[in-house]
Amino acid sequence: MTRQDCLDLDAADVLAPLREQFALPAGVVYLDGNSLGPLPVAAAARVARVVEREWGEGLIRSWNDAGWIELGQRIGDKIARLVGAGPGEAIVADSTSANLFKALCAALDLARGRNVVLTDEDNFPTDLYIAQSIADQRGLELRRVPASQIAARVDDSVAVVLLTQVNYRSGRLHAMAPLNRAAHAAGAVTLWDLSHSAGVVPIDLAADDADFAVGCGYKYLNGGPGAPAYLWAHPRHLARMDAEAMRQPLSGWLGHASPFDFSPDYRPAPGVARFLCGTPPVLSLAALECGIDTVLAAEPHGGVAALRRKSIALTDLFMTLVETRCEGQGLALATPRNPAERGSQVSFACEHDAYAVIQALIERGVIGDFRAPDLVRFGFSPLYTRFVDAWDAAFALHDVLASDTWRAPRFQRRGGVT
Amino acid sequence: MTRQDCLDLDAADVLAPLREQFALPAGVVYLDGNSLGPLPVAAAARVARVVEREWGEGLIRSWNDAGWIELGQRIGDKIARLVGAGPGEAIVADSTSANLFKALCAALDLARGRNVVLTDEDNFPTDLYIAQSIADQRGLELRRVPASQIAARVDDSVAVVLLTQVNYRSGRLHAMAPLNRAAHAAGAVTLWDLSHSAGVVPIDLAADDADFAVGCGYKYLNGGPGAPAYLWAHPRHLARMDAEAMRQPLSGWLGHASPFDFSPDYRPAPGVARFLCGTPPVLSLAALECGIDTVLAAEPHGGVAALRRKSIALTDLFMTLVETRCEGQGLALATPRNPAERGSQVSFACEHDAYAVIQALIERGVIGDFRAPDLVRFGFSPLYTRFVDAWDAAFALHDVLASDTWRAPRFQRRGGVT
Repeated sequence: MTRQDCLDLDAADVLAPLREQFALPAGVVYLDGNSLGPLPVAAAARVARVVEREWGEGLIRSWNDAGWIELGQRIGDKIARLVGAGPGEAIVADSTSANLFKALCAALDLARGRNVVLTDEDNFPTDLYIAQSIADQRGLELRRVPASQIAARVDDSVAVVLLTQVNYRSGRLHAMAPLNRAAHAAGAVTLWDLSHSAGVVPIDLAADDADFAVGCGYKYLNGGPGAPAYLWAHPRHLARMDAEAMRQPLSGWLGHASPFDFSPDYRPAPGVARFLCGTPPVLSLAALECGIDTVLAAEPHGGVAALRRKSIALTDLFMTLVETRCEGQGLALATPRNPAERGSQVSFACEHDAYAVIQALIERGVIGDFRAPDLVRFGFSPLYTRFVDAWDAAFALHDVLASDTWRAPRFQRRGGVT
Repeated sequence: MTRQDCLDLDAADVLAPLREQFALPAGVVYLDGNSLGPLPVAAAARVARVVEREWGEGLIRSWNDAGWIELGQRIGDKIARLVGAGPGEAIVADSTSANLFKALCAALDLARGRNVVLTDEDNFPTDLYIAQSIADQRGLELRRVPASQIAARVDDSVAVVLLTQVNYRSGRLHAMAPLNRAAHAAGAVTLWDLSHSAGVVPIDLAADDADFAVGCGYKYLNGGPGAPAYLWAHPRHLARMDAEAMRQPLSGWLGHASPFDFSPDYRPAPGVARFLCGTPPVLSLAALECGIDTVLAAEPHGGVAALRRKSIALTDLFMTLVETRCEGQGLALATPRNPAERGSQVSFACEHDAYAVIQALIERGVIGDFRAPDLVRFGFSPLYTRFVDAWDAAFALHDVLASDTWRAPRFQRRGGVT
């Protein structure tokens, strides 16, 4: 394998033109799109139009005239196409944490009489925090077990199985269908956090018979910093919520059946719209829609399935390159080698100061991420990551480790962001 | 009084130059800034910079390098200056509805053993919806009484008195200090929604001894469509929450004491930062900061107290002009005539189709708002509304009513937005 081989792979890649959708800075290899996706070219123009024309000139009229009021549902429908869901089944609103709160409360309300939320002990921290909060409030148990034991530990005390599909540290991928089956066999429902999988892993919520899902807009969906999040519920649960006039706890005015009546009494909107809460941040929503569109642009080329094939090729290549180039440099693969068991990232445990190594790598133009205590983490987005980027990143990592540049004081730890 | 008199008032107005902060469309009299404030000129440039430079070039690094991670607290400190609170006492995050949820839950946790939330029956609907949701969840009573009876109805069953300072329909203003005293005398705490008052009514949360407050960023604070909201808590409550390690229910990762440790266990951040939840929508936060800055720009000219004087002069003028020009046209003042009892809006009950009247007025270049069932509502922001605008709006209203243009089919009802 040579660098030219990588350039040849890029030249033959039918997805390669999708990279032109992004305004990537020159000289940077960006392998942190699983933390913050890059700027879509269209987002800059769109946000400027929303600010200057829709807000500046349209003023209050733009809620109707520019369709602001429909954004949460319109973008929800677009995300639904990426995760095997139908129109009218998903909304965009609030943050992932807030949506998890709503969805978990709703799932628990539907499963009255059971007193356990079962989750992966390595679940994303904010998911654990929110679940613990709800469990404390309701006098339930949050049962945290190793990822590998989830299916075996679902019993008839379990109301909800709460899982993040791809682990943010290791990149390990939960198989969705068997876990849904195991949960249902025990009479429990599932709630999936798709933050680290949507857009790069084929997801079929309907075919795999999931119950609830939430996820983040700013990772592989490229929606911009702190982009609003999404929430999906299976139509069978929405139908039951309709039939029983159930509300979710964050029952703000936008989830009302007739928000503009300003009625003093709450009546939940039918279907998933009841999960809307307050007035949404329109500028951030507009950017998010452009981000989703960058993923939908892969549809003519095979969609997420095609992205997944390239993702596996990229991560396979990067693993091989690092393990050969950086042999003996203190890195140990922390991501499943079997592509069926991982998402679109590669992490290594680093026996040196992993934080400093990443900082030195960033200075060298390769942006990866650090995850405590000892992981260097690299995300691969097949929309814009090239095979030659994997090559260059592996070589930069080798150079940083070989040259000991990471030991310089300027790379000492001061923080980091998911 | 003539139109020239109004122009003379504008020429003599020391606050008049503040209007230059806004990109107001030509030919429009904008009297709906209490629903959506106009675009600050600075916001267009700021948002473009955040999108193109901070997101586009800085990528993930901007969380630290561009200070994104501090925005919620930095902007909270700016809002604190407008409402008589200190630095470190307020945060910006989520929507008003979500913040009300957090604050009301926290207030109830501090007041265990009492089982009533007392509120104004005409409170803003989303506040009622959220309070009802919490009351149902906890088995409490949401007691809705007429605004005038609040003080008399606080008794020792009441945990929290929940009030919006300025009513969104009538513009009636609750006096804050006596209601805080009445609540405290009965052992209750207060939670104020400042959405329709902050920025135009002098508020001194500390001197008036309030307990909790929330509010919206996109009305008189000009933060942009769906701008994130704020939450304030009195330092005595924050200290107790610290001492007892209390959490609020939406305990997402950003409210953790050490969010970047990604610990599986939640430890609330000290002080008001525990009310942060998920990753915030940065583009919308950046615009919000520019909006707050437009109000802070009044500080050298007397700040909110000076804005209030102009607000009263504007609303007095508009009332007089409408009542004289539109006499016999079916309008009845629905806002307190005593300026001490109102915010910065003027509403009239309209015996014709109020919705159609507003639509016809908008077509004529005067943007007011309709509130069901029969109100025409006009908001006055002393930052940019001129005395001549009040004159022109009153005359336009007269013309619309006199000419019966509002009866045209194109003005029939199809919706509206707060």
